[in-house]
This record gives sequence, structure tokens and C-alpha cells, in this order.
Amino acid sequence: MGVSDFFDPDGIAVIGASKTAGKLGNDAMTNIRTYDGEVYPVNPSSEGSVYGYDFVDSIHETDADLALCCVPSPVVPEVLEECGEAGVGAAVIFAGGFAEVDDEGRAREDEIGRIGEEYDMTILGPNTAGYCIPHLDLYGSFVPEIRDVETGNVALLAQSGGVGITSAFQLDREEYGVSAMFGLGNRANTDFAEFVPVLDDDPRTDAIAVHIEGTDDIDDAIEAFRESETPIIAFKAGSEDLSEFVQSHTGAPIQDRSSYEEALAGEGVVFVSSVTELLDASRAIADAPTPDGRNVGVVTAQAGPGIIIADELHERGADFPDLEPETQERVDDLLQGITYTENPVDTGRPLPEFGQVIDAVARDDNVDVVVVYEIYEDSLGYPLEELETLAAEVDKPILFTVAGPADSLEAERLRMEEVGIPTFQAPKRGAHAVAALIDSVADDA
Amino acid sequence: MGVSDFFDPDGIAVIGASKTAGKLGNDAMTNIRTYDGEVYPVNPSSEGSVYGYDFVDSIHETDADLALCCVPSPVVPEVLEECGEAGVGAAVIFAGGFAEVDDEGRAREDEIGRIGEEYDMTILGPNTAGYCIPHLDLYGSFVPEIRDVETGNVALLAQSGGVGITSAFQLDREEYGVSAMFGLGNRANTDFAEFVPVLDDDPRTDAIAVHIEGTDDIDDAIEAFRESETPIIAFKAGSEDLSEFVQSHTGAPIQDRSSYEEALAGEGVVFVSSVTELLDASRAIADAPTPDGRNVGVVTAQAGPGIIIADELHERGADFPDLEPETQERVDDLLQGITYTENPVDTGRPLPEFGQVIDAVARDDNVDVVVVYEIYEDSLGYPLEELETLAAEVDKPILFTVAGPADSLEAERLRMEEVGIPTFQAPKRGAHAVAALIDSVADDA
Repeated sequence: MGVSDFFDPDGIAVIGASKTAGKLGNDAMTNIRTYDGEVYPVNPSSEGSVYGYDFVDSIHETDADLALCCVPSPVVPEVLEECGEAGVGAAVIFAGGFAEVDDEGRAREDEIGRIGEEYDMTILGPNTAGYCIPHLDLYGSFVPEIRDVETGNVALLAQSGGVGITSAFQLDREEYGVSAMFGLGNRANTDFAEFVPVLDDDPRTDAIAVHIEGTDDIDDAIEAFRESETPIIAFKAGSEDLSEFVQSHTGAPIQDRSSYEEALAGEGVVFVSSVTELLDASRAIADAPTPDGRNVGVVTAQAGPGIIIADELHERGADFPDLEPETQERVDDLLQGITYTENPVDTGRPLPEFGQVIDAVARDDNVDVVVVYEIYEDSLGYPLEELETLAAEVDKPILFTVAGPADSLEAERLRMEEVGIPTFQAPKRGAHAVAALIDSVADDA
Repeated sequence: MGVSDFFDPDGIAVIGASKTAGKLGNDAMTNIRTYDGEVYPVNPSSEGSVYGYDFVDSIHETDADLALCCVPSPVVPEVLEECGEAGVGAAVIFAGGFAEVDDEGRAREDEIGRIGEEYDMTILGPNTAGYCIPHLDLYGSFVPEIRDVETGNVALLAQSGGVGITSAFQLDREEYGVSAMFGLGNRANTDFAEFVPVLDDDPRTDAIAVHIEGTDDIDDAIEAFRESETPIIAFKAGSEDLSEFVQSHTGAPIQDRSSYEEALAGEGVVFVSSVTELLDASRAIADAPTPDGRNVGVVTAQAGPGIIIADELHERGADFPDLEPETQERVDDLLQGITYTENPVDTGRPLPEFGQVIDAVARDDNVDVVVVYEIYEDSLGYPLEELETLAAEVDKPILFTVAGPADSLEAERLRMEEVGIPTFQAPKRGAHAVAALIDSVADDA
């Protein structure tokens, strides 16, 4: 048994399932209904059925190999022992009240670990909001409406289930999805080191977004990040100064971001500073080709936001190369009388020629990454045709920062995403995504 | 004549008005149609009418006291001279091609300044996207769909018209509006020093969001920021290393952010680092009471995002006071068996008692600002009743960071905004807004 069991369970038991709305065991049942396989609500004090599934008294009456444990902390070891006896291969433990609380809780968590080992059972949690794999319609979580989250190509691996859930919804808000989301919680017997290789092997995952608070198995985690062929983008939260609060949450040891950064320097693991950056960087890296270097071409229709983007990129170590003579000539021809035709190129306002200017800069051999900024104008629209051609013909990242009336531009923004042009909705967000892309190039690449 | 003329023009002339879609002079006509007053399309080469307004040959045939100049740079001085002769009090010059381009352009800009002085004419621009005042239905801009932008209580004063426009649309995307938006552009005879006092006097403006690239009149600008009774939130863009690009844009001199920060230290002017922060901070400061100090109470329903918020606030110099004994007792009662009831308070997941926990923390005298984080659950909803009561009874800022399924939570988020609880859509965004609030307290406050 292993982490991959969470992807392909052969029957799911919901232990502590309930008919009462608002109860954990009811919320979990609500979410698991879309799963295309046997579901067993387990509860000896309930009769009849819930959502069309008949209650059973015990895990022994099921053929489940995945258990969602919706019972309170003190009951968990007993329930888990039964799962082990019944041959369950993997379990999700939602309840808190373990190592994050007190010594008694820690003892109980140790027992969970021991039971997992005894029965070779893979455990997600305790103290987690669970997981979801939208393309399998598999929502092993008690969080209502997690089923809204669509399929995408970024996997979320969050130490905090809350951060995992938040991130999934934040992606969803901008019409993106996830290949999978796992909230690790207290990590009784699975940690980053166990999940990263499985997500690395997942053909639907093009980038792994990792949220770290701190782990005892830091060396194994770092090794897993290092060995992943799928790009890793990491947000390390929790500082030494908040140690008590952080420990109270997941029982995580206190580690500085630098412990991770130093160990992974030059390995192509990208570190970011917020959930929004984590998601934007992961999308960019999942969807765009890997750049050959740090040379950025900026094309902006409005200089003010262009300055904001260039400023941030400059600070993050990007270079702004001169354009090749033939590119410069083409841009000058396109933009006669325009203020600033050198890189960063500023067209002053949206123009019918804007797409051709992007084309010229994107095809320039001096340029490794292109970032575009343009306030949307209805009468012109975005240069979709040129972008589509470029995405097909030019093997370098082209990122588009959109602005303007949200309702009008949304369809064209999504069309860009479809053809492989990642989009961003504020100047710095575009700049941060470019910075992540150039940071994602490992030293030996 | 003065800047206030932009607020209350008695007749508007659109010079270079056009019937041809996509032309600047047509876009400006499109936007000005909602203005409740006389509009005069001026163009000697056009006949008939545009959008129901009859063309006239010259500004002399109008009673306009505001002119929107849609003509190219070389023609601007001549047109402006005519405006002055015709008694026009204020003009917006959209065209680029002035000090930002070359010596010839700089000479032309100097001439504009001279004409403005000769005729006592207030000039916005050149090289600007213009301005808008939604509550007057007054959209003096060529940017299509700027009319989508609704009324709000934050004024945007942007050196770059593009940044002003982008910011207005970014607010609009989250259902906020502006009291006014001005893009200063090259500042031929009006600058921050002229606009800040007028926005300070505007009863509809509760915060002024300022975007700065750099200005020759830095002392006057700083004096205006210092004297404003309306809070100033400033985003200084453009670094020394980008000097050529920045100068090419608005002819702005190169100034470090520190020149502004040092001059305004302790004055309550808040400095931020991105457009998103600028808007979030301005909303928070416009809508929430001024805090008495830096003591922050954090209430979170999910510890992971709570850690992210606390982490950022800690770095920004916030304090997390102990709760008073009676508050602590009340919170402990409400959250029996919950992991972490001390500040930051973590309820583990959303609970029916969540609103009462916020209430307890918000009424604690040790707490100056409250920031809440909660992933939305349909069955519980957000604690609107408690929040509404608190907003009415407790004179301190309460900020709410939302997360979850966007469609489900949106109505309740907007309801919070209505009762005076500013909302934010990512953990760090909430933290940044709190940091701005505590930074907004002047040293002598």
C-alpha cells in the first residue's frame, strides 16, 4: 500500500457517516457522492441510508480499501485498528486533537503511526481537510463545495489543509483547476517525501505547488523536492517568532525558509512569498516552456504598468537585453513616432499593430521570456491570432498581464490560456510569474 | 480657474471629435455622452453630428469651460491657445509626444505650460488617459468602458494614466468603485500638489491612493501629502536602475522611494509595494475606523492561513497582545477542546460560535485591530449578524479575509462591505491591509 492508493481506491468507507447536515460525517458523504465506485457509510448508531448509500455497522462489512475517518480524536486509534484488521490500505483522518495539542495528543498520534506501520496502512493526516482529485471526481474532504474545484495541471501539496483548500478555491475563482490537492496536516506516516514522487509520476501534474510550515523529515523532504522531475514551487510559511502558534497547529518544528532555500539553491526549486504567488508561479511553470535564460522582453501598451513590471523584474535579477537589429527595425517600423521602441517596448496605447510587436520581440533570439501588458479595449480586442501562432511556433514562455473591464476581456483571457499563454491580473502578478520562470531554470540546465 | 473645474465643468468641448470608431476623438465622445451638460464636438473637417451632438468648427463657437484635446502633439499648442482665447478654464491633453520624447517635445511642453499660465488655464496632462468622476457620470478619458467603473470612496491619483485606469478596473473587478480617478501624465501645469488639496476637500473621498513615478516638484508634493487630512496611501514605482525607461514615459526625474518615505516618516502616509496593495490599503483606510495602536487580534477558522497572516503582520511590526482575562475566559468557553484559544485564536474549522469569538476579541480593550480569516461554508455562512453589530458598536477596524467558493460567498462578502467590514480575497492581502491601517496612525495621533 502507498500514497498512490489515494488516487485509485477500490471502495471508500466513510467512518462516522451521518445523516445530520453540518456534521463532519455528513459533509464528507456529500462530497464523496460523485466518486464512481462503492461507498460505505459506516456508523453503528445509524440506520437506513444516507444519499442512497445503506449504512453498515462496521468496516468489516465493507470491501473498502480507503477509509475517510470522520470520528473525534479519542476514537481514532480504535477505528484505525479496525480498518487495519479489515484490510483497508489507506485512511484520511480529519480530526484535530493530536500532536498539535498536548502530550496526550502526541501519544495518540504516535499510536496512529504505529497502527499504520503494523497494518501497512497509508495515512493522510490527522488534522487535515483531506484531499481532492477533480478529474476522478474524487473529493475526500469535509469541506463543502470543494466539488466546485475543476481539473487543472497544478498539484497542490499543502502542509495545512486550510491552505490547500484556500488555494484550490483561489485557482477556481480565476477559472483554473488542480490535478490534485492534498492537505498533509500532522503527517502521522506520510509527509512531503511520500507525496512528491507520486505527484511527480502523475501524468496530469505539470507543476507541484508546495506549502511548507516545517517538518521533522526535512532531509527527506528536500531530497524529494530535489529529485522531482516535475517542477516544484514552494511557499514556506511560519517564522521562528511565531513558533508557539505554528507548533500548536500541526505540531510542526520551527524552521526558517532559508533552511530550505539553501539546501535547494541552484536546483530549480522556486521559492515564493504568498499563496497568490505560489499559484501564479505554478501556473506559469506548468503551462509555459522552460526559458533558456534570464533575458526578458517586455511589451507594454501602457508605460506606467510596464515600469512596475520592469522594476520588479529588475529587482528579481532579470535582464532586459537589447533587441537584435532586425527586430529593432521591425518594431521601429511598426511603431513610427512612438515613444519607446527599445526593450522594454512601450506602444503608448493599444494599437492594431500590438500583436505584431509581440511577435517581433518573441522571435528575437536575445529574448528568453516575453511578458506583455495591455489594458483591454473592446474595439481592438487582444491579439489572439498572433498569440496563438507564437504559442505554436516559438518555444519560449509568453505571459500576458491583462487589465481592464473584467466582463469584456474574460473570454479572450481564457482563450489565451487555452493556447498556452498564461495570464495574470495585476502588473506585479505578471512580474512575479516571470521571475518564478527564470528562477525555475536549474543551474545545470 | 483651478483643479476643481474638472469636477464641475460648465460645458465640455471635445477638440478633434470624430465619427470614426477607434479614433481617440471618437472614444472620448463615447465616454462623455453620459455627462449631464452641454457637449461640443469641435472639428472643422467634420460635418453633421456625432452621438446626437452637432459638430462645430471652432472652440469659439462653444460655451465650454473644459476642453478634452484629442489632437496630436504638434497641433496641441495652437489648439490650447485658441482654448485660452475662448475663455476655457481647464483642458485635458491626451496626446503623448512631449517631454518624454525629445528636446523638441520638451519645448512644446514648456509652451503648453506658458499658455496655461497666460490664460490661467488648468491643464491635465499631456500624455494622460484622462480622468473620471463616476458619481457625476463624468468620464473625461479616451479609454473605452471606463464608464463601467462605479462610484466609491477612494480617489486614485496616478502619475501614469495607465496605472490609474488599471487601478480603477481592478477595483471594479471586485465590485468597488472610485470617488475620482486622475491620471497626471506629464504634469505641464498641475501636479500632485495641485490635486491632493482638491481631493482632500472632496466629501466623497475617504482615502487618496497615489501612484508616484517621480516629480520635479517633490517638495510641494510632499507638503501636499503631509497637509492632507484625508489619508494618503502611496505606491512609488520606478527605480534608479530603470531611469531611461521611466524618463521616456512621463519625463519624470528619477527618485527613490526612500526620498518620499524619509520625508513623510511619522506623518501617517502609508507606503505600499504594488497596485493591489495600494487598492486594498486604501479601501481599508477609507472604510475602517483609525486604530488606536498596533495591537492586532487574529481570529481564524483555519490555522494554516492564520499563520500566513500572523507571519506577515509580525514582520510588518504588528503586536499580538494577550487577551484580557475575561475575554480569554469567554473564548475558552466558546471553544472547548479547541487547539488554540489564545491570540491568534484558531477555531480549527468554521463553527456556529465563530461570530461570538470575533465579538469577544473585538471587544477586548487590548486589541486595536481585528483581522478574521474563514473559509466559507454554505451551511454556516459568514457571521453577518455579529459583524453588523460589531461594526455599529465597536469603534475599531475589523477586517475579514474571505476564501472559498467565490459564487457562494460573494453576496455575504458584499454585505460585509456594506456594514463597514472591509474584505480581502487572499491571506496576505488581509495582512497587508492591516499593516497599512496600523501604519496610517501618525506619530502625533
